[in-house]
Formats: sequence, structure tokens, C-alpha cells
Amino acid sequence: MKLVPRLAEQGYRNDLVAERRAWMTAQTGSPLQHVGTFSLDMEACRGNIENPIGVAQIPLGVAGPLRVLGEHIEGDVYVPLATTEGALVRSYERGMVTLTRSGGATVRLERDENRVCPLFMFDDVAAAADFARRLPAHLEEVRAVAQTTTSHGRLLRLDVQQVGREVIVTFAYFTGDAQGMNMIVKATEAACQWIVGQGLATRFYTFSGYNSEKRASGSLMAGGKGKKVVAGATIPRRLAKAYLHATPEALHHLWQRTVIGHLQTAALGYNGHFANGLTALFIACGQDVANVANSAVGITHFEVTTGGDLYASVTLPSLSVATVGGGTGLGSSHECLQMMGCAGTGGALRLAEITAATLLAGELSFGAALASHEFVEAHETYGRNRPAEETP
Amino acid sequence: MKLVPRLAEQGYRNDLVAERRAWMTAQTGSPLQHVGTFSLDMEACRGNIENPIGVAQIPLGVAGPLRVLGEHIEGDVYVPLATTEGALVRSYERGMVTLTRSGGATVRLERDENRVCPLFMFDDVAAAADFARRLPAHLEEVRAVAQTTTSHGRLLRLDVQQVGREVIVTFAYFTGDAQGMNMIVKATEAACQWIVGQGLATRFYTFSGYNSEKRASGSLMAGGKGKKVVAGATIPRRLAKAYLHATPEALHHLWQRTVIGHLQTAALGYNGHFANGLTALFIACGQDVANVANSAVGITHFEVTTGGDLYASVTLPSLSVATVGGGTGLGSSHECLQMMGCAGTGGALRLAEITAATLLAGELSFGAALASHEFVEAHETYGRNRPAEETP
Amino acid sequence: MKLVPRLAEQGYRNDLVAERRAWMTAQTGSPLQHVGTFSLDMEACRGNIENPIGVAQIPLGVAGPLRVLGEHIEGDVYVPLATTEGALVRSYERGMVTLTRSGGATVRLERDENRVCPLFMFDDVAAAADFARRLPAHLEEVRAVAQTTTSHGRLLRLDVQQVGREVIVTFAYFTGDAQGMNMIVKATEAACQWIVGQGLATRFYTFSGYNSEKRASGSLMAGGKGKKVVAGATIPRRLAKAYLHATPEALHHLWQRTVIGHLQTAALGYNGHFANGLTALFIACGQDVANVANSAVGITHFEVTTGGDLYASVTLPSLSVATVGGGTGLGSSHECLQMMGCAGTGGALRLAEITAATLLAGELSFGAALASHEFVEAHETYGRNRPAEETP
Amino acid sequence: MKLVPRLAEQGYRNDLVAERRAWMTAQTGSPLQHVGTFSLDMEACRGNIENPIGVAQIPLGVAGPLRVLGEHIEGDVYVPLATTEGALVRSYERGMVTLTRSGGATVRLERDENRVCPLFMFDDVAAAADFARRLPAHLEEVRAVAQTTTSHGRLLRLDVQQVGREVIVTFAYFTGDAQGMNMIVKATEAACQWIVGQGLATRFYTFSGYNSEKRASGSLMAGGKGKKVVAGATIPRRLAKAYLHATPEALHHLWQRTVIGHLQTAALGYNGHFANGLTALFIACGQDVANVANSAVGITHFEVTTGGDLYASVTLPSLSVATVGGGTGLGSSHECLQMMGCAGTGGALRLAEITAATLLAGELSFGAALASHEFVEAHETYGRNRPAEETP
Repeated sequence: MKLVPRLAEQGYRNDLVAERRAWMTAQTGSPLQHVGTFSLDMEACRGNIENPIGVAQIPLGVAGPLRVLGEHIEGDVYVPLATTEGALVRSYERGMVTLTRSGGATVRLERDENRVCPLFMFDDVAAAADFARRLPAHLEEVRAVAQTTTSHGRLLRLDVQQVGREVIVTFAYFTGDAQGMNMIVKATEAACQWIVGQGLATRFYTFSGYNSEKRASGSLMAGGKGKKVVAGATIPRRLAKAYLHATPEALHHLWQRTVIGHLQTAALGYNGHFANGLTALFIACGQDVANVANSAVGITHFEVTTGGDLYASVTLPSLSVATVGGGTGLGSSHECLQMMGCAGTGGALRLAEITAATLLAGELSFGAALASHEFVEAHETYGRNRPAEETP
Repeated sequence: MKLVPRLAEQGYRNDLVAERRAWMTAQTGSPLQHVGTFSLDMEACRGNIENPIGVAQIPLGVAGPLRVLGEHIEGDVYVPLATTEGALVRSYERGMVTLTRSGGATVRLERDENRVCPLFMFDDVAAAADFARRLPAHLEEVRAVAQTTTSHGRLLRLDVQQVGREVIVTFAYFTGDAQGMNMIVKATEAACQWIVGQGLATRFYTFSGYNSEKRASGSLMAGGKGKKVVAGATIPRRLAKAYLHATPEALHHLWQRTVIGHLQTAALGYNGHFANGLTALFIACGQDVANVANSAVGITHFEVTTGGDLYASVTLPSLSVATVGGGTGLGSSHECLQMMGCAGTGGALRLAEITAATLLAGELSFGAALASHEFVEAHETYGRNRPAEETP
Repeated sequence: MKLVPRLAEQGYRNDLVAERRAWMTAQTGSPLQHVGTFSLDMEACRGNIENPIGVAQIPLGVAGPLRVLGEHIEGDVYVPLATTEGALVRSYERGMVTLTRSGGATVRLERDENRVCPLFMFDDVAAAADFARRLPAHLEEVRAVAQTTTSHGRLLRLDVQQVGREVIVTFAYFTGDAQGMNMIVKATEAACQWIVGQGLATRFYTFSGYNSEKRASGSLMAGGKGKKVVAGATIPRRLAKAYLHATPEALHHLWQRTVIGHLQTAALGYNGHFANGLTALFIACGQDVANVANSAVGITHFEVTTGGDLYASVTLPSLSVATVGGGTGLGSSHECLQMMGCAGTGGALRLAEITAATLLAGELSFGAALASHEFVEAHETYGRNRPAEETP
Repeated sequence: MKLVPRLAEQGYRNDLVAERRAWMTAQTGSPLQHVGTFSLDMEACRGNIENPIGVAQIPLGVAGPLRVLGEHIEGDVYVPLATTEGALVRSYERGMVTLTRSGGATVRLERDENRVCPLFMFDDVAAAADFARRLPAHLEEVRAVAQTTTSHGRLLRLDVQQVGREVIVTFAYFTGDAQGMNMIVKATEAACQWIVGQGLATRFYTFSGYNSEKRASGSLMAGGKGKKVVAGATIPRRLAKAYLHATPEALHHLWQRTVIGHLQTAALGYNGHFANGLTALFIACGQDVANVANSAVGITHFEVTTGGDLYASVTLPSLSVATVGGGTGLGSSHECLQMMGCAGTGGALRLAEITAATLLAGELSFGAALASHEFVEAHETYGRNRPAEETP
């Protein structure tokens, strides 16, 4: 058994990365030339990757303009999307142009928090109940302890849920522009240690699974795991027909029929393809892409207004996005965030709004392709289909 | 409103990609220098991306060796993982080394198919029932029509489900080494047109939502959306303690407690962090990363054997992986597949087995970090923690 | 600790039932006079109840006429409903009269089976996979063994699903007019013993939880646990307004809005109040009322037809009803089944059709009450509101 | 089409009930003699049933003694169970005796509330967000309005959730000993009218489906729909073996294996057969039996303690029970509540505790039957099996 070579200082220097890559080529026969072609500063990736050999190069396209009418951005943006699924960028672009021509997508944030949900174990249900009843009174002390570990996260509240002789405690935090899991896990662990130190409990696990990060669950609908964002727009009938090739009635009809399919398959929520847009945007922008598992749970709605237009909306109850920390500061990721004016501190809510508007665009275009039976055709001609604006 | 420039031949030539990138820099102020540094052949990306401006560079590390005892691979591999989550590669590596020292991960495939699930609409439930009863008799004709459109997909069977006056028909296909959605959607649409032409039905949508691609649903547990793969291994008590710093009992205890958290949060299945490994592997290997939404639904199990060792397993009912089509042939993706001997025709089942073994490694290491309360510490020191093999 | 008295022959004779009742009065102070007033033959209840002290008297009303256009009944019935929820009978009656005036509810059965899903345990995933692959070839032998235990149940097929080192096997049976769980559990246990005797497996549990009897689960949508039945009807606009006080558009609007609420609450399926009608009918007719937990999972759909009428449907994927066995032959239960021509052999499919039509009636009336904002008013005046037919 | 006869004063007088019953016999040929044998005061059922023809007689047995160590009852009770499923009473009795011999079941209530969740509709997501942000400030006014309609319900809080251009508002109430839906729906409707009157919103539906009453959903796990109750007990190893014929390890083994089955079937929560005990108790005690659909969602846990004993618990997050209103005051229902000291005001929390302890008993006995492979045998001999106490 040959371990991956252990190199000096964990091997982030370019020559050491190359040495490891060469070793890997020797072991596997793969040339790794593309992997070895990059401009990323590998030393800067310390803390993001281990055993580095280079980069994955993911094709990056842009879609837009997308007019976003949020509370953190009011204007047009171009959205970077990294994907290898043909027609995806073109489809999102079509939706964006439609939205922009229609006046833009209105976006609102309802909640902005993240959570860690340790579980405490007791000898019997009475002891667990005692703890569940007593803990809330210690909020201020717990908060003080949690915040000794971080200057960025802020403990908002504690929620307790007893299950048998366990108590799951939700530590809900505001984490600013960071996704913040490392930060709040550390804070929570400190708080749990304090709780034990006080004799309130004796045993705990820092993770109970209840927080539902990076996995899909029914509880995500109620929010609390990331940012809850809602985007909506009225698409005038004329523009729906011109750009989407579908009437408002056709899109509503599709919606109500495919809701049935979602119910029948026991899906969480309803959406056309949230995961596509989220994944492409997350890869482009240095997000933790595994958070697609929770972020893609949400609801799309297509309705006909009393005036005969289309009202379309998306609700993302548990969206995980960040503009500081993780991979957000690295090379192409940083540049992609810059493209949208979202890089660094103060960018996360703007990014959340853009993300919701992007998904709304994707739902419109995907739904329209299905409603108008153009989906196969679009995928047949993907990169070669006519750009959105030339259509009408 | 400024549209993204429309360039000659959709603009895949390097100079045109640069022109578009420069235009984007002018619009947004982002330098896009890292985005513009790549070796990928953009002409080859026609069909994978539109409006290209370059690439996203995602840090790529390697973990291994991972001994896989499957039916399509029996041997050790090194697994490329593209991520920006610190400690992830190190954690998977620890699990892989543990598995390999324990003799390897045994993997079995139970199903290998993909599906498209159109819905047919009727005037009333009686007409829908008639259709649902009559369609199965037309399997051979439907298959013949579907296969006029593809030489790779093979229609395995039709399943019908009536809901009100609709009938959802599952077209189940074998798609070989391709993920194959475009192929089987096209085949299904042809079949649906034939069904209408025969007067069996008059209206349909090609997608009902029932197939649950790129979204999470309860029906995924039963398989049918991609490959169903199961991986398992016995970890001798001694090695569990040495490499994972946890006894079999400790891991089982963690499992049974956190299952409670999963039930309480109304999660689909149970797992520690399938999405992490899947995402990193999918980005590295040119997979359709949005398929993480369905692929991450599955079940991990930690048990203590009668001999006092640990038996750990992962079950992935709906794993979407491919080695031909999509982004699998491009630059670094192709090289990453080559690293594992999975590039091209004949590689998909091998890739599925490696993926399952990789996730098993990740579950072991993550579970152990939680059980031993080392999770925070590991994330504090991520790239700097001691390599796995040095531990004991 | 005083045990409930042990009486001769388990104490089903009337005097012994009275003796036990008197003892219970002595212990608890409850007079139990109503409990002791009954005409049920307690000796006949041997096999249905233990430690009997009398009966629960549940108020029984009737609703109808309900015109059912099924394949096992074509005509009008009156439906017995036992409940204490005021307005329930009146509400169902309103729906039934509306359906009947509209020509009746069309009903179709798609599946008729019941299942037991034992799990087999193996040492590792390879052994489990071997079993999963080999078992299907033994279908005929397994069937032969299963059927040595019963002359009524018929093993239709075996489905296997591997999870880790377990294999869950679905034994799907046709059980005729019986709900049949005791019968098919016994048959399955015999089959499992045979499987072990053949050396195919060594350890099993007869129940894995997968069958989802008496509990709600996503897998119920696909059927297999009881009878799958679909009922639908076109309600002319004029009649919708006259009887339901709501236009087709109003009912559709309500539907699409409240589907959102169901998605948001992570419900299984969608319906207004299936559980109400099912419970009232099940109590009246001697069904196993706990089966409401699985039977109530289903989908209601309200649509506006192209002609401007209402199309309403209900889909019950996992309905458990029976006309032989259990409590179906006892006193008032038998009489209630007789009322609908469903008593005894040959009645179960007819009962399934009537049940589906009944639920459709209930969904129409309940939905209409919400859409027209008459719900509170109806419950305020329940037993006193104007009978349905007097309305227009 | 013959309507059910319209009789004087809605026909609750005994002679009118008999007249209706005779008419029904004439229509259907069913003698309805058992239906017509009852002591229930039909006039008192006005408000519980319409078109009454008599009663359903459901066999009623008793199980116990059950020692409950709650905060509203500390002592032994006998529990009335109305069912036609043979072996059910005997099985619950076995569990109860086991619990009692082990010192009793400890029970704790965590929440006690009920909810109505109207939805408000707006023209766009911005207007919906405005409403969602502004409403909480009106809590006191809303509460004042709601409470003009009821002296029993108390509005605890308002929770808002935006979905697209809708806002679902949870009105959470304390309802005392009543299940209280009629009361709180009326209060909520008054509050909604006030909200509209204030110009805060213009359109609403009183029900969104979000409250999840009488249906199963993921959100029920978090409580809020009824009483949340947890019951647990330590069963000494010796007693587990003597009464349950299973070691603690055997029960834990069964639990961990069948949790897998629950996950695989996409079940909500985990339990052996909550629905059985709930249904039998609800029918006996005049509860709204349709509430089994929500009440049966919960979690059972079997663990081995460090001392080698069994710790068993049940968690019922959304239990609907009442001791005033509905059918609780009628004939046999009232007597059954009296048996447990739960009739009338002040009884509901006691009833909730007894219910949880009863289900714990049922889970122990059912689980043990499966673990010891005695399930079939028990059902073969049901009414004839040896009483629990004689076993050891």
C-alpha cells in the first residue's frame, strides 16, 4: 500500500504540488497535464484542500443580463455559471432576459441564519425533560461562552426538542457573510462543554443530524439552515409568448400537472431544476458545492394573474451562500464574485438575492421548454441554438 | 439592457472567448485573469457550455490508496477530489487508508438504469385507466420506436401509475456508460409521439417530475434513477481504534443516536456527509454535479459484529455517474477519470464502485471524528493535521 | 398490582364479560352502563378482542345517495359513517348528492395486493448481494411453501432490495376479500423458514418496517400496500355553484394554493381530509381502523375542464379494506356492510370503489366550504344546517 | 335519487332515528338491528352526528394495570381499548404489565398547543414580505380579536412563513382540555377578518394545509399540532426476558435493523404500531379518531443501558387528545374516560400521559414478539394465548 507522499509543510509549494502530481502520474498513468495547468496560488489553498495536485478546470460561461430588484442589489448583473451540461447557460440566459425585459425579479430575504444541533443524552426521559426545561434560562450564559470563540457569529437563540431520553438543541446563529459552519461548530462545542461543566448535562454529540446541512429533509422547508430567500416576477403575457414560447396558462398547466408528479414521487418541495443553477453558480463562485443538497429544497410556483399575465416565484428556504471564507477568495472564484459585485464582506445578501433571481430565471426557461415541447430540440442544438434575444 | 455579445459560430474559438471575457471585464470590472488561464480546448466544449469566458479553477487533491473489491475493479486506486472545504481530502484519505488496511471495501451493484417519466392526460379516470391497462401490451412496439433514436440506450420496461385522470409512465432504460438523459429523453419523446399517433393518448408532457432527477425524494430509495450500489467493510477493532480513534461500539452508538436526529428532521435516508464526497468527485471527474441532489440520498450503517469488529456500509440507491458524454471527456475531467482507470467506454460501473467505496471511507472518517469528539480539532488544523498513516 | 381477572375460557360468555366489567367498575368507579349495553355476540368476538367488558357505542349516521360508477358496483348507495365530529356526515352527504346529481363518481382499481417485507441479514454486502440475486429464481418454490399455509392468499411476486448487508424482500400477495395480514404473515414466515432451511440465508426478521402498514411513508404513493383506487367526476359548473357554492375556478384556486401549504409542511401527498371519511367508514364497517394511517396517504386534484366545468379526483394508492375476516362479520359492522351490498365474499372491491367515491365526495364538500369561506359557519350550525338538497 | 329523509328538528328523537333506520332498511335490505341497539342518548349527539340511525358497536376490552409516572397522574390505570384486531389487547396488556413490574412508565409533556394556519395572498413577493414583516407587531391586537370569540382558547403566538407571494401564518393556541379545532378556527377566522379590515391584507384562506391536522407530514416531528409527549422506562434485563421473552440486546438489534426498513420506505419517524394503540384508545374514549393520522407520527427507541437493561421510549410530537368537547361526553366514551380518571375538565394532560405510556407498552410487546419470532404464534392463538402474568 503506497500512501500519497508526505511532503514538506504538507506540500503546497508549486514544486511540491508538481512532485506529487508526477508521483500520481507514475502510479496511475494519467498525464495530468490539464490538472497541472493553473494560475491558482496553491499556498493560498492551504485550508481548502489537502494533497493538492492542481485544479479541475470547469468550463465557465456567463448568462445575463439579469435585473434584480432586491434590498441589497437593484440593478443588472451577469451571472457566471460553471457547468458541462449543454444548453444550461443558454436556458438560464433566456430566463434572465425574459425577467429583465419584464422589469426584473423582485427578491426578499426572510431569514438569515445557520445552525448547529448537538444532542444531549440522559439516563431517562425525566432527566431529559428537566434539561430541556432548564436550558433556555441559560441563554445569556451560553451565548457568552459561544462568543468567546468567534467575533463574527452571533448566537440568536436556542430551541430544544426532546426525543426519548435525548434532547436536540438547535443553536441558531447569525454568521454574516460567511457560511460559517466551522466557526459555529466551534462555538457550539465550547458552549456544550460549558453546559457539561455546569452539571446541566454529562454527555453530548456536537452533531445530531438535525441541522440537515448537506442533506435533504422536510425540516428545511421551515428555514433556519442558511438564508431564506423568495424571488418573484410578473411576466407580461406578450413577453411570455415572445421569449418563452408559452402562454401563462400553459405554464400554469404544466405546474399543476407536474406538482402531481412531485407528490407521487414523495419529493421535498417542488421545482424544475434548482440543482442545475445552484451547482453551476456554486462551482463558479467558490461556494461549498455540497450545500446544494440542502439549498435545492424549495418551491416554484407559476400562476396566471387576474390580468392574464404570468406570476412566477421561487422560494429557497435553506440557501447556503457566502462571500467570505471557504473557497470564496480564491482565483477564479473571487473573480466570479467580483463580476457580480459580491466579493468579500457585505456581499452575501446580495449574492443570495442574485442566486434566487437566477433560479427563477432557470425555472421559467425550463418550464417553458417543457410546456412548449421544445426541450428535446433545445438539447439537440444546445450550444448551437439561437441566442435568446434573436427570438422575437 | 446589454446582451452578452453574439459572436461568430457561437464564439468558441479562443480569441472569441477572450473577446467575450474582455467585454465582461469591461462591464463588471472583474479582471477575470484566473478565469482566462486554462488549457481546456474550448472548441471541444461546444455542447457543454454556452457564452464561454474560460474556466473555474477548483483546487484538486488526491486521496488514497483505496482498495476496492468490486466486480468491475479489484485493486487500489487514488481518488481525485476537487473541493475548497478544508480537511475534506484528509478526512476521506483517513477513511480510505483504514479501509485498505482492513482489506478493502467490498462493492456490489444491484441495479443499473435511468428513467424518464412522462405523464399522459385524459378526460376522466376511466380513460386514464384504460390507457394504463392497455399500454403494457405495446412494450415491444414502444421499445422499437424508442430505439430508432439511439443505439446506446435500451428500454428495459414500462411502469404505469395512474393519478386521477393522469397516467405517469416510467420508461426505464439501460444507458451503458453514459448518464444518458438527453438520449433517453429523446427516445421517450419519440415513443410518446408514437403513442399519440396510435390514438392511445392525445396529450402528454415529457417530464412529470416523477423521475426525481436532480432533486431529493422518497422514491429514490427504491432505485431506478441511476445505479444502485452498496459498499461495505469489516474494520477490525484494532484498526478502528488505531486509525479512527473510535471503538466499534462508539461508532454504532453515534449511529443509533444520530439516526434519531435524522428521523426528527424528516430526512430522506441517513448519512453523515455523502454530499461532500460526491460533490468533490463529481467536480473532479466531469460528472453532472447537479445529480448530487439525487445521488446523495442513501443510507449509512455502522454495526458491531459478533466478533467485536465494526461493520460499516453505505447504500446508494440512485447514483448518477458516467464515463462517456457530458463533461467526462474534457481536459482535467478526462485525466481524473484516467487516474482511476475509468475513462471512456466500460468505465461507468467501475466508477460507480469506486464512488461507493469513497463514500464509505468518508462516512467512516466523519463518523469517527464525531464519535471521538475530534471534529472541531480536525477542522482547526485541517491541512495541517497529521497524515493518516502517521497516526498509529 | 391487580391483574385483570383471568376468567374461564378467557371469559367471553356474557356473564363473564359482566363479571369483568363489574370488577372494572369496582376498581375505577366508572359505571360502565353504556359499555355494558350491547347486542353483539361476545363469543363471536373471540379472535377480535381480549379481556372484553362490552362495547364502545359510536354514533352512526348515513350519507347518500352516492352514485358509484365502478367495475364492481354501478348504482346508488347509502354510506354508513360512525363519527362524533359534527358536520362530517352532512358535509359528506352534500358531496355525495353533488356527485350523484352530476352523474356519479367513476372509479377504477389499479392494483390489489398486500405485502409482507421480511429482512434477511448477512455477514457482508457480498453475501447479501448473492442472496438478492439468487432468490428470484426460487419464486416457484417459495410460492409453493407460502401456499401450504393458506388457501386464500396467492403470492404474486418477490421484490428484493439490498441495504448494506441486509436484504429486504417484498412478498406481494393477492388476498381476495380479506385484508389478510395474519394470513400472509404466516405464509411469509413459512417461506422464510424454508429459505433458511435451504441454506440461502441464516437469519431474518419477519417485519422490516418496509411494508409501511399502519404508518405513513413515501413509498405508499407507489401502491402495493392494499388496493389502489382512483375516483373522479366532472361536476358541471351549474351544479358546482348550486350545491357547492363555489365555481370550478374557485376550487382549483384553492387547490393550487393549498398544495403549496402541503409542500411547505412536507406532507405526503395532498388531500383535504381523507382521514375523516376513512375513519368514519372504517369504524362503521368493522375495518381495521389503524389502517387509516396508510390509507389516508393519497392525492386529491381539482381542475377546470376546457368546458369550464370542474374535474375532481382522488387517488388512494394504499387503501386497506376488507369484507371478510377481522371485525367485518360482527353485529353492526356486518349490517353496515350489508347496507352497501358489500358483506362477505366478493365485496371487497365493491367496498374499495365505494370508499374512493365517498372520499371524493368529502373532498368536494370540504374544499368547497373552504373556497366559499363557509367552513366556520357550517361547523357552527352543523347538525342544524340545511340539508343539501334544499339548497338550490 | 332518493335523499335520506328530512325529519323534524333534524331527527334526533329516538322515534325519528328509528324511522330513518327503518327507511334505510327498506332501501338496502340490511336489518340494522345491532345498529338500532344502543343506550346512547341521541339527542345528546346533536352536534356530533347527522342523519343518525343508531350506533356502531365496537368490541371493548381492557388492558392493564399500567403504572404511569407522569406529572398529571402517578399511579396505575386500566386502559379501555376498542378494536377488532385479535391479540391487540393481549399484546398491550403484556407491555403494560411489563412496564408496571418494572416500576412504571415515566412521562413528560413538552408542548401543549394546537394551530390553525391560514394563508394570505398578495400581488407580488414584495407585498407578501411586507406583510410577513409587519404582522408580528400586531400580535396583541390579533390576540384580542381572536379571543372575542372564545373564552377557552388562548393565542400563544404567530409564526409567519412566506412562500412565493403567499404568507402562511401559524396561529398557535393553548386549548386546554379540548382538541379545540372548531374554537380556534373560529377565532382565527375572526382574526383574519380583522387583518383584512385593517388593510394589512385583502385575501386569505383559513386553511393552508400547513397545520397538518389529520394528515402525516414531516413538520409534525417538530410539534405544534397537539400535545408533545415523551414516555420512557428502564426494563430490567430479568423482566425483559421473563415477560417479553427477549433480551435488551435482541430488542435493540431489532430496532436498529427495522430503522433501516423505515428509512428505506421513506417513512415519517419510526414506530412499531402506534396507530394500533391510538386507534383503539381513541375509539373507546370518544376522541376524533381521524387525528390518528397526525398522532401516529413519532419515534420509538430501544437501547441497552450501560447496566445491561433495556431503555425504551416513545416520543409523540403531535398527539391530539381531549377530555371535553367532541364525543368525549357521550355514553360509553365518557365511561371509558372515567375509568382512567380523565373525564372532563382537567383530564387532557392526564390522558396524554396515559396514551404515551400505553403506546410504550405496545411498542415493547410488539417489538418483543418480532424479536423473539413469536408474532405469528401470538396471532394464531390470540384470544387464546396465555395471559401475560402467567408466563414467568
